[in-house]
Amino acid sequence: MKLTNLKLVTIITEAVLEEQVIRELKSLGAKGYTVVASHGEGSRGMRAGELPGQNIRIETLVGADVAHKIMEHISAHYFKHYAIVCYISDAAVLRGEKYI
Amino acid sequence: MKLTNLKLVTIITEAVLEEQVIRELKSLGAKGYTVVASHGEGSRGMRAGELPGQNIRIETLVGADVAHKIMEHISAHYFKHYAIVCYISDAAVLRGEKYI
Amino acid sequence: MKLTNLKLVTIITEAVLEEQVIRELKSLGAKGYTVVASHGEGSRGMRAGELPGQNIRIETLVGADVAHKIMEHISAHYFKHYAIVCYISDAAVLRGEKYI
Repeated sequence: MKLTNLKLVTIITEAVLEEQVIRELKSLGAKGYTVVASHGEGSRGMRAGELPGQNIRIETLVGADVAHKIMEHISAHYFKHYAIVCYISDAAVLRGEKYI
Repeated sequence: MKLTNLKLVTIITEAVLEEQVIRELKSLGAKGYTVVASHGEGSRGMRAGELPGQNIRIETLVGADVAHKIMEHISAHYFKHYAIVCYISDAAVLRGEKYI
Repeated sequence: MKLTNLKLVTIITEAVLEEQVIRELKSLGAKGYTVVASHGEGSRGMRAGELPGQNIRIETLVGADVAHKIMEHISAHYFKHYAIVCYISDAAVLRGEKYI
């Protein structure tokens, strides 16, 4: 059994952005992803409707370099116009060499 | 691109408690949260019905001080009477200054 | 308030495997688990249908030894025939002594 240290990138955003974000994650090097339906409120001072209606929580396991590219991409293209949360954490992954 | 080291607090509990727990998280300083529907079994020896029916998994990104307050609050007010799981992990958050 | 350092094991796989995997997690020592419905694509080169239809995301908080046993079990019994993702991360857990 071998574990590979990867980055787990989590993105929480509006459900309408799912297809677009997934396409971009793949083009930036992500080999897989998991989407879960969610709801909640955003970080911009809790204004009602900040993350309105159905949201999604997307997770992808990637190497540190791809994680960095994803964060740069989200920063540059989404923060101005969309309600989006993005964070990374550490994960030790089984068969993790398949993700990088 | 700037990342801020925050705490991700995860709370898994009975769906009927959602409104109340969210209200308390906000009053303790949480600026946002994400809720996902879940089901499962609890930690008290796997007795059937420990976490009966629909559960929720609530996540909130907060600073270490707010994380501590949330954990204290959950300990003091929920453990005796409710099926609840609560844990914290580390997360590096984009635009994380908005969460503290 | 006391926190216990545990391992959070996350398993993402086909929904049809839920009952079987949960039964095995319990027999390996897990005291509880949370299941969330999900969808996504797997890590084997993004072939369509790799993780077809409805998937599940299972989480369980366990001690390091049980985490190791779970990872060994998944490696030995699932990787050859099923689309499955498995990773561990660190969590500081309230009332965590109940999980080990």
